[in-house]
Amino acid sequence: MTARRKAAILGGGVIGGGWLARFLLNGWDVAVYDPDPQAERKIGEVLVNARRALPMLYEVRLPEEGRLLFCDTLAEAVADADWIQESAPERLDLKHTILADIGRHAPETAIVGSSTSGFMPSQLQEGLDRPGAVLVAHPFNPVYLLPLVEVVPSTRNSAGSVERAVEMLRSIGMFPLVIGKEIDAHIADRLLEAVWREALWLVKDGMATTGEIDDAIRYGFGLRWAQMGLFETYRIAGGEAGMKHFLAQFGPALQWPWTKLMDVPDLTAELVDTIAAQSDAQSGHMTIRELERLRDDNLVAEMRALKGRNAAVGVLLDAHEKTIAQRGAPQAGEPLETIARIVPVDWTDYNGHMNESRYGQVFSDAADAVLALIGAGEDYVAAGFSFFTVETSIKYLAELHAGALIRVETVVTEGAGKKLRLSHRLLGADGTVHATGDQLLIHVSLETRRACEPSGAVRDALETLATSHSILRPYDPGR
Amino acid sequence: MTARRKAAILGGGVIGGGWLARFLLNGWDVAVYDPDPQAERKIGEVLVNARRALPMLYEVRLPEEGRLLFCDTLAEAVADADWIQESAPERLDLKHTILADIGRHAPETAIVGSSTSGFMPSQLQEGLDRPGAVLVAHPFNPVYLLPLVEVVPSTRNSAGSVERAVEMLRSIGMFPLVIGKEIDAHIADRLLEAVWREALWLVKDGMATTGEIDDAIRYGFGLRWAQMGLFETYRIAGGEAGMKHFLAQFGPALQWPWTKLMDVPDLTAELVDTIAAQSDAQSGHMTIRELERLRDDNLVAEMRALKGRNAAVGVLLDAHEKTIAQRGAPQAGEPLETIARIVPVDWTDYNGHMNESRYGQVFSDAADAVLALIGAGEDYVAAGFSFFTVETSIKYLAELHAGALIRVETVVTEGAGKKLRLSHRLLGADGTVHATGDQLLIHVSLETRRACEPSGAVRDALETLATSHSILRPYDPGR
Repeated sequence: MTARRKAAILGGGVIGGGWLARFLLNGWDVAVYDPDPQAERKIGEVLVNARRALPMLYEVRLPEEGRLLFCDTLAEAVADADWIQESAPERLDLKHTILADIGRHAPETAIVGSSTSGFMPSQLQEGLDRPGAVLVAHPFNPVYLLPLVEVVPSTRNSAGSVERAVEMLRSIGMFPLVIGKEIDAHIADRLLEAVWREALWLVKDGMATTGEIDDAIRYGFGLRWAQMGLFETYRIAGGEAGMKHFLAQFGPALQWPWTKLMDVPDLTAELVDTIAAQSDAQSGHMTIRELERLRDDNLVAEMRALKGRNAAVGVLLDAHEKTIAQRGAPQAGEPLETIARIVPVDWTDYNGHMNESRYGQVFSDAADAVLALIGAGEDYVAAGFSFFTVETSIKYLAELHAGALIRVETVVTEGAGKKLRLSHRLLGADGTVHATGDQLLIHVSLETRRACEPSGAVRDALETLATSHSILRPYDPGR
Repeated sequence: MTARRKAAILGGGVIGGGWLARFLLNGWDVAVYDPDPQAERKIGEVLVNARRALPMLYEVRLPEEGRLLFCDTLAEAVADADWIQESAPERLDLKHTILADIGRHAPETAIVGSSTSGFMPSQLQEGLDRPGAVLVAHPFNPVYLLPLVEVVPSTRNSAGSVERAVEMLRSIGMFPLVIGKEIDAHIADRLLEAVWREALWLVKDGMATTGEIDDAIRYGFGLRWAQMGLFETYRIAGGEAGMKHFLAQFGPALQWPWTKLMDVPDLTAELVDTIAAQSDAQSGHMTIRELERLRDDNLVAEMRALKGRNAAVGVLLDAHEKTIAQRGAPQAGEPLETIARIVPVDWTDYNGHMNESRYGQVFSDAADAVLALIGAGEDYVAAGFSFFTVETSIKYLAELHAGALIRVETVVTEGAGKKLRLSHRLLGADGTVHATGDQLLIHVSLETRRACEPSGAVRDALETLATSHSILRPYDPGR
């Protein structure tokens, strides 16, 4: 970015506030005008959320925040603005008044985006002196996180102004989907409305509750749609025979008496050809096998991400895992088998192998298994105590790839008072040693976040284990 | 699990094969019957995908695979089965024939699930001797990954048999959504059909291509729906005023001329009350602020997971990141600032702080920044060379939490020939040192995966940097 740019935000509700946050956190100056006396409080609440979440998406620091100015008049807000975003309530007369007012005060070069979810740009442009300055820029909640923005010009917008709009929206991390033809409700909201209508029927007829409908979405096709949309997903369902085969196989089902709303376009040869050709253009560079692999890897990564949050589908995975997590009882004087698992695809990096940090994670998880064994697991943490790692050394001896079966053997090399020292080795399926690790942990109070003595039961269990391991040697005696 | 259970899979296409994989990989014995001569090959292809992906979801190893048996007759397949899954083509006469055949050969205690996406259980049960054994168990592709399965009994299924079905499906990691009332196409497919119909209209009318529709889904509401469904998302949109407010605000929009299909249920006071009460039951234990935080954290984790895969929304994030990744030129004789970023929420663990393995990741990323600086970045990797870490030591000095700004300073302590040694320190926003790290890397050929000399340009850049850093001391001289 060269000179700092300025956005004017007209209307500071959830949508306007989200726009504001996205511009501001990407380094734009932002001026707001909203006659609501609560606007500053409401925007502040959106900003708290956005400041927490948006910067987390990136591995680099975002540019310094721009300046935020609350204005008393629309004229003040739009002065010198590069982008003006109108997010007023969904009433055409109100939008017309605001857009006309913008026309009187804004720089001629400013682009005016409307957040309207329903109106077409030509409707918004009616009666304006400079209709070509206004287009639809329809975002999705939360605006500071979701990249989609539907950009809808009319015939009165120049190609150059659409290009400038796209460039500015990209510069704040959005995905401008330029919609070539005007249509009520654009594209995404038409799909959303279709689902919403069907969902209302299901609730009204007592077929399902709101919670059941949400579960039917988030444990099924919602996961698919976060990474591929509708057509690419169905292309896979059609198999090697492709999209035409899918349409031939499933097309007729559309005519069945499945829903309340039955007006379906005829699947003429022409429509089938159109869809097949568009699908080829979209996904034809990958075979169905490659698409399947891509889909599966994306689903695994997504589902594991939610597992890490202990949310949505992750809760199910965790519950299932508990039913399969079984480990043989430890044998006195034998190393503990602390980990037996598969390397997941989200642990690999650009070198095509397990990232070095994940060796550290495996050993950290191995330490958790030791802690569970000595009674310092989940319940102990809930009671306010834990062990924190203070030092780790890892020697990387051989690579690992996604899908590999790995095991960790762990020896307690020190276990007395506040100190716990572990020696790990990470083994492949064939017994190859892929890494060794030495890890020193200290017992802490989670209240003071400082070292303290463990409970009597934990101390005794730890000492018993350490004593039984005293005949074993650390895995990396060279350290 | 106690005694090993047996599933019979009738029909081994994409859906039947997916069922088979899920049972088998969860330790069930599986017998398949499919008259298609290509069935074994097709199932083999699904199994390759499933064996790769499903075990990656868990931090523990799945139970040992059951035995897989291809059978020449249906009778042989269903003998002694605990669960029988019918995934024949969607023709009622065909399904009736198969279900009657199952009735003649299966144990009386077996549960028979049908993968039908359209038929109601009472339709399937017509004319059967033991109708109560059969219910709908409708899964979603890929069956081995997506947990949703719609379980639909009729009035002829006993409560006990539904309970047993639910227990068995849960034991293989699925989420059985029991649908109390029979309905054509159950629940999820009605929502999918509604979207599909609308999407076909959009393509037919030339409003959008298949690729644009997919983008409108996966960069917008698809991300939302992977973690919350429709109603919980809209509950947030309604703000503190709740679901009733949302319905009052957006309800009228449903009557607008937005789509081809306009039959909408009246939002009577009764329907509004029903939806509001169900939404309270589902999400009322959280305030809107809490729901927003949950949504944002889930979205961040999901989007970052796809970023790690360089897929879908992750591609957009990566492209945007490149436009903001700017670092001042390194000053000779000064430590390099290799990292400046925010701790994302997916890096925290059950102790509420950044997991120890992520300190390793930060230092690994810091090393990448050094590599990019000496010309050993992405292009160099693409050309077949890289540096692999062989040894790391980390001292953890202070905790870090999600949202914290962190920086890393790096000193090149050794840089000659194949060897690169780095000393890092991780700093908080106030200059506190949170960790120090020592990291030894070796230059490798990505073809042989063995050590080799770097290219002349990389070697020279490395030696220049190392020389300029020779006046600096490692951050942890005590090592």
